[in-house]
Amino acid sequence: MKTAVLFSGGKDSGLSALLLEPFFDEIELVTFTFGHDLAWKVAERAAQELGHPHRRLAFEESVLDRAIEILISTGYPNDALDYVHSIAIETLAQEYEFVADGTRRDDRAPKLSYSEIRSLEDRTHVHYLRPLAGLGGRTIRAMASRYLNFEEEPSTNYPASDFEVGLRYALAERHGKREVDRIFPGDHTHTRVIRRKRFVQEIKGQENQTCQGIQSES
Amino acid sequence: MKTAVLFSGGKDSGLSALLLEPFFDEIELVTFTFGHDLAWKVAERAAQELGHPHRRLAFEESVLDRAIEILISTGYPNDALDYVHSIAIETLAQEYEFVADGTRRDDRAPKLSYSEIRSLEDRTHVHYLRPLAGLGGRTIRAMASRYLNFEEEPSTNYPASDFEVGLRYALAERHGKREVDRIFPGDHTHTRVIRRKRFVQEIKGQENQTCQGIQSES
Repeated sequence: MKTAVLFSGGKDSGLSALLLEPFFDEIELVTFTFGHDLAWKVAERAAQELGHPHRRLAFEESVLDRAIEILISTGYPNDALDYVHSIAIETLAQEYEFVADGTRRDDRAPKLSYSEIRSLEDRTHVHYLRPLAGLGGRTIRAMASRYLNFEEEPSTNYPASDFEVGLRYALAERHGKREVDRIFPGDHTHTRVIRRKRFVQEIKGQENQTCQGIQSES
Repeated sequence: MKTAVLFSGGKDSGLSALLLEPFFDEIELVTFTFGHDLAWKVAERAAQELGHPHRRLAFEESVLDRAIEILISTGYPNDALDYVHSIAIETLAQEYEFVADGTRRDDRAPKLSYSEIRSLEDRTHVHYLRPLAGLGGRTIRAMASRYLNFEEEPSTNYPASDFEVGLRYALAERHGKREVDRIFPGDHTHTRVIRRKRFVQEIKGQENQTCQGIQSES
């Protein structure tokens, strides 16, 4: 079995991929980009660390236009985040049988509603997986830390492949930093995977006699 | 790290444990029982197959009394299922730092609401994990099948360690089969893990030359 994981290069989508590893023969980490810049390179480096193929897909220009419109008209980020996320998931659902993301239990956006998920699965026959949907923030941090070194940074930092960072950047370019400050919270952060510390079989290898080298690892 | 997994012996709580395996040093599979019978033995055998320690905890008698009252007064199973499940989770939260269950995205009961979960975590400092909260029924079946042979059987069959089966059985004993037919749906099924087909390292080991690749990696 093969799954796509919507991937920003951060600890959440990284942990999502780690949780699925034992169940899939292939995992493709897919990053969507808004523009022509190189922000997706951040995600590509994180994907290399994780050890899975990375793929970059560009949104159509109309998607960014519409997202910016939603930001300005609503005055807050959630609806625009929901919009770009749903376009990404729908796009992947056309091509993959299994599509996962790193959305979490405590996230308010981006999030598909229960009926949107059922509709997506019924229309496209995709399996949509949210491996972090039942995990709180502290739990995600504890589990991700077992495998990943990651850094937290303010979302004012650019580049990064997180949707929120991408929208902030595009909004600033088109409408100035004032609009960003009006619409986005000041204290948002995102994470970036720096290094994968170990692989599943290293941990599991300790339990049996399969791999000498790995046993001494602990 | 160590986690308890609320365990019925079925494919859902079994898959929940499998998903957590790479992240925890110890997993304890815990089965709650209503009575003095041997239904929990079904879960114990499944736990042996999974390869994790099994533990049995008995509800206080008042819990079954109250659950039966709720069944009879509401006329449907959900509130009673929610009640016994929440008692089980609260009990485990007193003792374990991490507590997981096998409740699924599409389950209506048992289920803690979002505010109940936040309250539980704030009061007891437990990490409450629902690894299947973001997975649909088809997906769970596909993922569980990779590791587990399981059988599906009608919930009229006894014994089994599933809460619904336990409540049906106790209600029939006290109030007769007519009440069971009035309150519970006729077509409910549950699953039973028969065999674990493979371990994580078997799958992962196929992808590279087991140890060499991994060692030079770090």
